[in-house]
Amino acid sequence: MRTVDIITKKRDGLPLETEEINWFIEQVTLGAIPDYQIAAWLMAVYLRGMERREIIDLTLAMARSGDILDLSDTLAYSIDKHSSGGVGDKTTLVVLPLVAACGVPVAKMSGRGLGFSGGTLDKLEAIPGFNVQIAGERFKAQARSIGLVLAGQSARLAPADGILYSLRDVTGTVPSLPLIASSIMSKKIAAGAQGVVLDVKVGRGAFMPTLDAARDLAQIMVNIGKDAGRDVIAVISDMNQPLGSAVGNALEVMEAVKTLRGEFTGDFLEHCLNIAGYMLKLAGRCERYLDAAETRSVLLQAFKDGSAFAKFREMVIAQDGDVSVVDEPSRLSQARVIVPYYAPLSGYISMAAAELIAQAAFELGAGRATKADQIDLAVGLEVHVKVGDYVEKGQLLVTIHANDPNKLDACMAHLQRAFAFSETPVERLPLFYDVIES
Amino acid sequence: MRTVDIITKKRDGLPLETEEINWFIEQVTLGAIPDYQIAAWLMAVYLRGMERREIIDLTLAMARSGDILDLSDTLAYSIDKHSSGGVGDKTTLVVLPLVAACGVPVAKMSGRGLGFSGGTLDKLEAIPGFNVQIAGERFKAQARSIGLVLAGQSARLAPADGILYSLRDVTGTVPSLPLIASSIMSKKIAAGAQGVVLDVKVGRGAFMPTLDAARDLAQIMVNIGKDAGRDVIAVISDMNQPLGSAVGNALEVMEAVKTLRGEFTGDFLEHCLNIAGYMLKLAGRCERYLDAAETRSVLLQAFKDGSAFAKFREMVIAQDGDVSVVDEPSRLSQARVIVPYYAPLSGYISMAAAELIAQAAFELGAGRATKADQIDLAVGLEVHVKVGDYVEKGQLLVTIHANDPNKLDACMAHLQRAFAFSETPVERLPLFYDVIES
Repeated sequence: MRTVDIITKKRDGLPLETEEINWFIEQVTLGAIPDYQIAAWLMAVYLRGMERREIIDLTLAMARSGDILDLSDTLAYSIDKHSSGGVGDKTTLVVLPLVAACGVPVAKMSGRGLGFSGGTLDKLEAIPGFNVQIAGERFKAQARSIGLVLAGQSARLAPADGILYSLRDVTGTVPSLPLIASSIMSKKIAAGAQGVVLDVKVGRGAFMPTLDAARDLAQIMVNIGKDAGRDVIAVISDMNQPLGSAVGNALEVMEAVKTLRGEFTGDFLEHCLNIAGYMLKLAGRCERYLDAAETRSVLLQAFKDGSAFAKFREMVIAQDGDVSVVDEPSRLSQARVIVPYYAPLSGYISMAAAELIAQAAFELGAGRATKADQIDLAVGLEVHVKVGDYVEKGQLLVTIHANDPNKLDACMAHLQRAFAFSETPVERLPLFYDVIES
Repeated sequence: MRTVDIITKKRDGLPLETEEINWFIEQVTLGAIPDYQIAAWLMAVYLRGMERREIIDLTLAMARSGDILDLSDTLAYSIDKHSSGGVGDKTTLVVLPLVAACGVPVAKMSGRGLGFSGGTLDKLEAIPGFNVQIAGERFKAQARSIGLVLAGQSARLAPADGILYSLRDVTGTVPSLPLIASSIMSKKIAAGAQGVVLDVKVGRGAFMPTLDAARDLAQIMVNIGKDAGRDVIAVISDMNQPLGSAVGNALEVMEAVKTLRGEFTGDFLEHCLNIAGYMLKLAGRCERYLDAAETRSVLLQAFKDGSAFAKFREMVIAQDGDVSVVDEPSRLSQARVIVPYYAPLSGYISMAAAELIAQAAFELGAGRATKADQIDLAVGLEVHVKVGDYVEKGQLLVTIHANDPNKLDACMAHLQRAFAFSETPVERLPLFYDVIES
């Protein structure tokens, strides 16, 4: 086979054969195809799309490009979750211990963040000593002993996806549904998942700007799951405003811990109950319960009786983290400068723009622009309002946590554009728009 | 500006601003944009196209990326020609001395061939000693003294085009009208042309497979000329069968020399008269003549009185070539094995497939697959028939000139597929389909 023929075929809008996709991904993994040919192929895929069969072929080829984790000797049913990325999305930190506390063990690999905010690994590292390098037998042993492990993604997991992703980032080919879907699902399959709950975000702070695009992506991933023999539920959730309150790594850990301890209610708690409920459903745990209401009460009970928080503590201890910061979240890394941001006028909040709030946090150092960048784990924002809330002029909207006072102006500039106010009442944003099951 | 933004904009089908195109080509020329980003951009241009204004911007930016030749101190009017590439196309070798003999001096740069046959430079090098490295003052001095110079293209001529072209070749983005048109015209503009006659080939042996595509390409290049203040005439000529008889470098030189000496008539001579006529027209030389018929008689006179051939001899001498092979073409490099290929049956020739005949010559070593390949100048084919000719079974169709007998089978295999025969008369192919002038 010749790379240029495969590029040309896709360029002309023809479907690639299974053997062609397999060969291409094998050669990419071997480093035998120059970047410029991969880049041309990515743009052709972006503009010409892929059929359902091509997408499952691509997903499986990428999953096979490295190690495939076999958790069958460790878990009765291997359940995973994935979020397409949101502002203030600390869901994994709460949902995993919650599900584990309800009797469904979870062994998950997560990634780091690139862009406006940190990823789950970055957030976990706000806990001093927390070790994300748990692999092989230790990974499985912890899953067996405490039913919960949350580790960094092995570089040997779907390496072809890593090669494609790094090129997509610089060639304008990130927002392609076949490429996004195969990237996500190849890693889930390689990580040994039998069931996956996908949280597809939609809105101004999400990759998917429209509900139609989010539905398409969700459907493609559900189809991949079906074709690959995996159970998949995709929920489509709002990302026009931040999820919960905290945006920034240590702040998000604090919010997660407080949520686990039952100290918070609101949109973030509701979001976690939904995602966890679907995970229990996939794992067959909630067959015992009659309906979603009973699943909900089981989950709430795990908050109430302290078992979800206890599971989180167990994980922190097992992974060498300083559990005292979990028991006393005020001991988490603190920023030097705490600055309030007040409402410039009275009214109903009609916009709390997720992407601008993310940029405001990014200015403080909460995210990384390139893989090599260091994240400042202490900095970030606490956003105290939601769309639909009424505020008086001068009321506290955001608490800014900064380390470098020189960065405050840029942060504030984004915040000024992030909020809008209305004299008349504004409808609240929904948490979820849709659920797609196979 | 950011490269990824320019890629994304074109990916989304939006026209690029003049400043964006200028910046992009400047950065490409500097080597500041990685190949994978150029490749993604090329595929986006391929699939999204370009507006007329974008194409002229791209052409001028590439022309400016290196030296721009100024021939205003050398020629009253600088006329150039370009062929989009054909099988057996030795037109430049005849047309340039012919035009010069009619009083229009020509100073032209040519390229080498990549693909099935050699380029003009390769053909010239079949003349022992012929020096194509004529540049700077020597180039101009020869144009002034004898009115004819034919040299290799400077590497400093439109270097951005060279970078883009080498990537197009391996990324499936060669056959894009905006990219082809800007590549051709940028080099003509950089080489100082005031007027250009474009010979756009159409048919199975050409880049452009259909008349519509050829017309589109011709029109785009005529538009570029108009917008850039250059006079352009584009003729669309047939490339379903080889032009003339010879395919192969020394053989084509021999055919050109014999044509210059008035020993040949037929399609190749007619083709040369047309191209040369349009060059005289652009240069204003034929204003003195009443119509095309008179232009034709002036050109034929230059063959008849020996002045065209004399001009060719002058050039060979001025460029250090062995003029004895011009006077006695049988002294040109000869292949070791001469093998006749006979008609397998009687009938009217209904196909003499240019691309298969080219592949047959390529198998003998007449072309190069990569830039590093060596061409065997002596090998090639003489094709003795045209579509519409009647042949008897066993009549000589092709004379094969080979150096390596092991290559004959592969050559023959292509020839067997190249010809088709009909019991009923077959219409001859036209030489030209259309002419587009600004």
